[in-house]
Amino acid sequence: MARWQPDARGRLAHAALELYAERGYEQTTVAEIAQRAGLTARTFFRHFADKREVLFGGSELLGERLVAALDEAPAEAPALAAVASALEVVAGLIGDDHDHSRRRQAVIAANTELQERELAKLAGWSRMLADGLRRRGVEEPVASLAAQAGVGVFVVAFARWVEGPPRQALVQVLEEAFGELRGVIAAR
Amino acid sequence: MARWQPDARGRLAHAALELYAERGYEQTTVAEIAQRAGLTARTFFRHFADKREVLFGGSELLGERLVAALDEAPAEAPALAAVASALEVVAGLIGDDHDHSRRRQAVIAANTELQERELAKLAGWSRMLADGLRRRGVEEPVASLAAQAGVGVFVVAFARWVEGPPRQALVQVLEEAFGELRGVIAAR
Repeated sequence: MARWQPDARGRLAHAALELYAERGYEQTTVAEIAQRAGLTARTFFRHFADKREVLFGGSELLGERLVAALDEAPAEAPALAAVASALEVVAGLIGDDHDHSRRRQAVIAANTELQERELAKLAGWSRMLADGLRRRGVEEPVASLAAQAGVGVFVVAFARWVEGPPRQALVQVLEEAFGELRGVIAAR
Repeated sequence: MARWQPDARGRLAHAALELYAERGYEQTTVAEIAQRAGLTARTFFRHFADKREVLFGGSELLGERLVAALDEAPAEAPALAAVASALEVVAGLIGDDHDHSRRRQAVIAANTELQERELAKLAGWSRMLADGLRRRGVEEPVASLAAQAGVGVFVVAFARWVEGPPRQALVQVLEEAFGELRGVIAAR
């Protein structure tokens, strides 16, 4: 039995991403992840339901923070500005571990099932943002358009950030992308 | 053996959607679809690889038409205008059978796996559009932002169209949604 150590969850996640990168996601077992982390499989299952949840375990929390941040945007903020500020909060939560995000993205890119899970997560964010905007009194189709456009900008910014140099902050790449979207629409 | 009849593919698709709506997608077998269409399972498999392909068999063709339409947009068209014109061509191809689309959408909405497949299709369109824009000389992140924004508008317009009255044309709903996106950005 491994003795109690701080941040078992973080060590398990780190070990899992290392192994997914080395051997492939499908080929990695929970027993191997636990061993690499110096912990037991039992401890793994106290933190994660399965090996997929290592990659998506934070999604629910991020979704909650996204909605909370949208609700906290000033009442007079236009729809897309409110969406942008909410996504910037999420970007701030994600964006302090470039190496982790880069590894995670590489694992996802190599597996169709994980890609579909990632797309479902993003579609969920879009739905949550549209719901939140309607709660703020924004009408359709503006609510859905702003949510879709915002998540689309996030996807582009995240891809640029994760492929870019580690020193950049995701929040800043996201802000720039929102600025560029304006140009894209204006040019039409 | 059923004798040869015109448009076996269309009859099979129609029968499949009826059965998916009546019994649920998971509970419907290929044998039942063929029987409802007055055809054999063997004929079914000449037209579709499996029962999922009844719902997504047209996706590849639509993707090809999307890319072709983008390539045909005037060279001087701004990125989002080119994307909009390509998506309008696809909307024209989809939009002449509201009832079929409505049934198909209800089946997909009831099944997580089908939803993920639909999201993957849309993500594929976004990638194809961004690739096509880069071939036209559009730089990043403009290419990806225009592709993401365009597909986002399509998703919103399609949902509005499919839930709306059957007399509306998808192309028109899509054009209006592109117009509204401009307002969404301007208000930011």
